[in-house]
Amino acid sequence: VAEILVGAGEAAYRVVVARGASRGLGARLREDAGASPVMVIADDTTAALLGAALAEAAGATLHRVADGEASKSFAELERACTAAAAAGLDRGSTIVAVGGGVVGGLAGTVAAVYMRGVRLVHVPTTLLAMVDSSIGGKAAVNLPQGKNLVGAFKPPAAVHVDPDLLLSLPPRQLRSGLAEVLKCSMIADEQLYGSLLANHQKLLDLEMDLLTDVVTTCCAIKAGVVTRDERETGERAILNYGHTFGHGLEAATGYATLTHGEAVAVGMAVAARIGVEVGVTPADVEARQDELLDAYGMARRAPGAAGVEDVLAAIGHDKKARGGSTPWVLLESVGRATPGHDVPGDVVRGAAAWALGA
Amino acid sequence: VAEILVGAGEAAYRVVVARGASRGLGARLREDAGASPVMVIADDTTAALLGAALAEAAGATLHRVADGEASKSFAELERACTAAAAAGLDRGSTIVAVGGGVVGGLAGTVAAVYMRGVRLVHVPTTLLAMVDSSIGGKAAVNLPQGKNLVGAFKPPAAVHVDPDLLLSLPPRQLRSGLAEVLKCSMIADEQLYGSLLANHQKLLDLEMDLLTDVVTTCCAIKAGVVTRDERETGERAILNYGHTFGHGLEAATGYATLTHGEAVAVGMAVAARIGVEVGVTPADVEARQDELLDAYGMARRAPGAAGVEDVLAAIGHDKKARGGSTPWVLLESVGRATPGHDVPGDVVRGAAAWALGA
Repeated sequence: VAEILVGAGEAAYRVVVARGASRGLGARLREDAGASPVMVIADDTTAALLGAALAEAAGATLHRVADGEASKSFAELERACTAAAAAGLDRGSTIVAVGGGVVGGLAGTVAAVYMRGVRLVHVPTTLLAMVDSSIGGKAAVNLPQGKNLVGAFKPPAAVHVDPDLLLSLPPRQLRSGLAEVLKCSMIADEQLYGSLLANHQKLLDLEMDLLTDVVTTCCAIKAGVVTRDERETGERAILNYGHTFGHGLEAATGYATLTHGEAVAVGMAVAARIGVEVGVTPADVEARQDELLDAYGMARRAPGAAGVEDVLAAIGHDKKARGGSTPWVLLESVGRATPGHDVPGDVVRGAAAWALGA
Repeated sequence: VAEILVGAGEAAYRVVVARGASRGLGARLREDAGASPVMVIADDTTAALLGAALAEAAGATLHRVADGEASKSFAELERACTAAAAAGLDRGSTIVAVGGGVVGGLAGTVAAVYMRGVRLVHVPTTLLAMVDSSIGGKAAVNLPQGKNLVGAFKPPAAVHVDPDLLLSLPPRQLRSGLAEVLKCSMIADEQLYGSLLANHQKLLDLEMDLLTDVVTTCCAIKAGVVTRDERETGERAILNYGHTFGHGLEAATGYATLTHGEAVAVGMAVAARIGVEVGVTPADVEARQDELLDAYGMARRAPGAAGVEDVLAAIGHDKKARGGSTPWVLLESVGRATPGHDVPGDVVRGAAAWALGA
């Protein structure tokens, strides 16, 4: 069992990573809750996988949403808050998110705003949520104008990561999460890079002890970054490596064609290419990243997926922008990325054309 | 010009109290904004009073809502967030609340959740907002199940209090705000009590310099309490003096019959009566509070306004409840209240019957 501390002081919380961590959790949630009602939020898939049983064992209300990104909406936020009120949740209550990034984002936002904030516990069920979205306290829902435009910084009280839950994850979703794992190694951990490259087949085959080690390492990397920069004013930006172009690509394709991980993989390739072009990233670092992406079967380009101008326009509207500029996160070596690079527009356009061109 | 510091460290902000403080504010907001768009939120009345001119001077978008509590809804929260996105507000943007508690609560919630938080500036236009709701960082909107069930702790970047704006306030709204002023004196400042009693006619006649002094004193009292207890875990509860019964009465009357201040005045009388009954409040303290309420023409009872059981049920659902109990704030002397008093149910029932009985 690995326990990773995130944050400092009163707001610090533990990420527990252990095979089987979700077993027996209901009874513990019930104990922690005391007299206050608990609500479990899950989607149809994760309710069947774990959420319904967990809610029953915890004596909690189950609030169910439909699978998919559409559940991260303002309407679902209202429906969940209303359900929390109807279930009598009070200031001492706990909301338990059982699911991937969509459920975590919705439940985190509910827990942030219901009665101005109640306890939040994450039980991530996807690799993406385990290594990324459940740690760091970012929660949001979407508006028609863009993703994650409404939300809060809402650190959870605890995160329970059970890698065994990944055994039921569809392969494409697993690979989507692996893109964040690969990103972790490129921005922060050369040793992890070596291990990922050497063990790619075992990881793709879900060798659970190995995968648990990788998940633990990635959780620790993310925990370290967000502890040092909780409010995303500096270092935390490196976590967005591959995401500037990736988010633009997702937006320009209507979030329909590519998974988040597939878009991030292309974004990583674009960022490396840009980094080489502007002299920040050594050419061999790009080559080593290519090797890693290839080993995991991640496409580095998405020819014809979207128009260059559409992606560039979407990047310009990226919510990290402040007063108009779009800073880039670029690699300096394998295991080290730095934020805040200004990149000339024609360099961005050139890399976008490479990634999207036929 | 009085400047009152609220909070500590990075999150500290200034409340500026000065006659004419709202004049020239637009140009300063424009300067502070830099390249990021600004949005002013106002209701129909406060847009005409100040909001529209302020938005124009600041180069800001004006987002207008209808007058009244119905604007503190989830639907209006969504509409305002969508308007913010449509106006291109980014992470460096500022939302300016021009209005009373409704506009402040809505705008504060928008500023808390839009892009996980943008700058918030309060320009309160009612006495209630000046001395109470604009200070302390509590923001919320309502759900069908209850008031203020969705929101955040969102400390503003600044509060600009211009008492001259009170000259256009309808008399009943002024009196509603005065109830919070009277409450301030009872819970925290015996000298203020004396001044309020001696000068009641001048204050009701809007002698502006005197009223400005009173507003400043009340702002300083609230600032002190919330600075010492930002998250409402202890002392801050004393600000709810008169509000336990007051909120119950408002809820049971559908927020239609009584203003917030009228309900609080009755709640203060009920709390004093309960305090005497359980031996916390000396009888002469209740008598002195009666004298003050009478001087301002505040009814201490609301005969027939609601059923006793309805109010008691509403109190039981008060969101300050944690695991079921409803602690009371009671007076120990004029100028000193203490929170967390357990009161036997029959004592509460007796006081409620007194306040509501024919």
